[in-house]
Amino acid sequence: MTDSLAIHELGQRAQAMLDDLAAITDEPGRITRLYLSPAHRRAADLVARWMAERGLGVSEDALGTVRGFRAPDETGPQANRRLLIGSHIDTVIDAGRYDGNLGVVAGLLAAEELNARGVKLPFGLEVLAFGDEEGVRFPTALSSSAALAGNYRGEWLDMADRNGVKLRDALVGFGGDPARIREATVPPGAVIGYLELHIEQGPVLEHQGEPLGVVTSIAGQARFRIAITGEAGHAGTVPMSLRRDAFAALAELATVIERFAREGTANLVATIGRVDVKPGAINVIPAEVEATLDIRAGSDAPRLAAIERIRHEADLIANRRGVKIRFERFLDVPTCPMDAGLQDALAAAVASLGENTRRLPSGAGHDAMAMARSFPSAMLFVRSRAGISHNPAEFTGVNDLGLAVEAMIRVVLGLARRHGAAA
Amino acid sequence: MTDSLAIHELGQRAQAMLDDLAAITDEPGRITRLYLSPAHRRAADLVARWMAERGLGVSEDALGTVRGFRAPDETGPQANRRLLIGSHIDTVIDAGRYDGNLGVVAGLLAAEELNARGVKLPFGLEVLAFGDEEGVRFPTALSSSAALAGNYRGEWLDMADRNGVKLRDALVGFGGDPARIREATVPPGAVIGYLELHIEQGPVLEHQGEPLGVVTSIAGQARFRIAITGEAGHAGTVPMSLRRDAFAALAELATVIERFAREGTANLVATIGRVDVKPGAINVIPAEVEATLDIRAGSDAPRLAAIERIRHEADLIANRRGVKIRFERFLDVPTCPMDAGLQDALAAAVASLGENTRRLPSGAGHDAMAMARSFPSAMLFVRSRAGISHNPAEFTGVNDLGLAVEAMIRVVLGLARRHGAAA
Repeated sequence: MTDSLAIHELGQRAQAMLDDLAAITDEPGRITRLYLSPAHRRAADLVARWMAERGLGVSEDALGTVRGFRAPDETGPQANRRLLIGSHIDTVIDAGRYDGNLGVVAGLLAAEELNARGVKLPFGLEVLAFGDEEGVRFPTALSSSAALAGNYRGEWLDMADRNGVKLRDALVGFGGDPARIREATVPPGAVIGYLELHIEQGPVLEHQGEPLGVVTSIAGQARFRIAITGEAGHAGTVPMSLRRDAFAALAELATVIERFAREGTANLVATIGRVDVKPGAINVIPAEVEATLDIRAGSDAPRLAAIERIRHEADLIANRRGVKIRFERFLDVPTCPMDAGLQDALAAAVASLGENTRRLPSGAGHDAMAMARSFPSAMLFVRSRAGISHNPAEFTGVNDLGLAVEAMIRVVLGLARRHGAAA
Repeated sequence: MTDSLAIHELGQRAQAMLDDLAAITDEPGRITRLYLSPAHRRAADLVARWMAERGLGVSEDALGTVRGFRAPDETGPQANRRLLIGSHIDTVIDAGRYDGNLGVVAGLLAAEELNARGVKLPFGLEVLAFGDEEGVRFPTALSSSAALAGNYRGEWLDMADRNGVKLRDALVGFGGDPARIREATVPPGAVIGYLELHIEQGPVLEHQGEPLGVVTSIAGQARFRIAITGEAGHAGTVPMSLRRDAFAALAELATVIERFAREGTANLVATIGRVDVKPGAINVIPAEVEATLDIRAGSDAPRLAAIERIRHEADLIANRRGVKIRFERFLDVPTCPMDAGLQDALAAAVASLGENTRRLPSGAGHDAMAMARSFPSAMLFVRSRAGISHNPAEFTGVNDLGLAVEAMIRVVLGLARRHGAAA
């Protein structure tokens, strides 16, 4: 099963399943499958059917997560525990085919291949298809995986979508049951770990020419609104020395932020994504600027140090230029490290395929963040073309799909060996 | 007439006339008096009445310019020539009280004071109240003063306002006559010069603590659209080294532009007034930026040199960052130097008042630009609070108004002496 023809064939099977899921959408002509929508219902039903076809015991929990259980093949000390493999089947609006869906397909194909190869596992295996990862419809945060990890927040049920539909009511309409959310939780002691395969959504693997990467951590992140107040003036009549140009102040601050990020460690990245300049007239010196700053890193210390440097530099710029610069932090999520043992298990599986074991942080959030609060968790990344994601142009080649799924199969075999059984 | 009480009293008369004009508006509650509007009609009628009350021969030319002529008091060699004093009575939307109107009021008060003081002039004096300086209603450029200077462009008549009304038809409705535009022209040989008093619309005089300034030139000006094309990407997943961030490129370019302007001579100023960042999402690396650049200086060479330096630096930035930077120049107006002899005459008048003879360029455009194409022209600036203009907060104190009007009276006396008559 390591020859390239077999890898390619495995990739083709993954691609076919991804194509079947991609055909299920709330908006004909593009892929849009929001949490608890009719398309989500149909996708959940398809996943359930696939699970049943592969001999898994199918259930759907109170949050709409489709769960397929493969019972342990032995009665040893691990027989009461289970390995979780999954990801999500909701999408953004006008999505690609891979984000989330690939991790679910990988779990299904792993279960199928374990059976086909006659593998006996000392623990249970549960494939999970979460429904609320993208957070597009409701302003929740990974609510379906949070429920499984025992951290569901009751207030999420009262959140409403753009049409005023509350999550609670949407859940009932979907077939879920707000009263039984606690039953969705799996106790930490019953879990060997959670594994998630996902497209990278970034260009690092492609740039390195490597198909697979082991995620070291999910980046911590802070978001700020930056408001700069200067003074308007006529573009022709106010000498440079008398200006208090709010945009010139932002430009200087932006160059400093970029330099700090480049100098930073732990894959520090900083982005000014939104800029609003007022009054925004060609012949008026900008009086006010509002901008956003998104700053992330694979560990917290370099991120927090960079934020301190940026704020200090902003104070200097403000004093020198006679402008006001205010930072409002509206998001701060600490770094979520991935389990070291599971990282090593993933790396061993990648190495067994003859590939380099590149390790990299994830700049984007994933269900693994919610799962890591309760369970040892780890992620495998597969390269995605140009790092494009959340877009119909999202693409991962068939061969890479096959390698990624085979690596997921092999990490299960490796964990089975570690946990005392012969695969 | 040099004591401060008399200056203050002269300023109060100017302020009263400015207040009367400010009451004439197309939008009750704020000052809006667009070219050829009903409010313009009423303001022109008030100015005509003021002219008649001061013994001037009143006419209104084909473009709606109100003209008040004071015949020469002597029959010498200058008796066929005239000195022009004026400015405009149209305003921007939600305007202040001083811009334009002060120059017309100054001409009227000068004529009044010459009579009151029994001054005999060897030349004629004509007070002008132009109607189309701000260019807000029609996309023309100083069309009423251009007509007087013999440079009216026929195509302006076909330009339409936002309601689709053509300038030609608006002119007829106002009482003008498109067929008689040529008659509005005054031959250059018949003109001693054109003098315009205007608020500075900038902070230089206030910053220097001086009430009056002699304008050396009206700044040349170029305007560009800057379009930067980079590549979008996820703010969390694309390492700094692999980014092609369009906004980061603009920020670097903006800091360079600001530095070049500060290093420049001839009061070089550069302004990035409009900035549009796309897609403009907090978690997406900017793919496209559009910005405007307005660059002006008191002489052309430093301005053109700065533009060359900026474009060269933009090429370097584009190459280094892997982005495209395009400049589209959509305006280029050369510097308009003011007449040296008239500048000296204005400076002498200012000095006779015991004030420093500060000289400074005008960063904003004025009717004097159109007039300078045919006649020796010069401008006197009076300080305006915080340099605020095109805004109800526009303000010049009564004492400064008095000083400015008195300086305009004295420059007439000085020119009378120079042209061979005793004042």
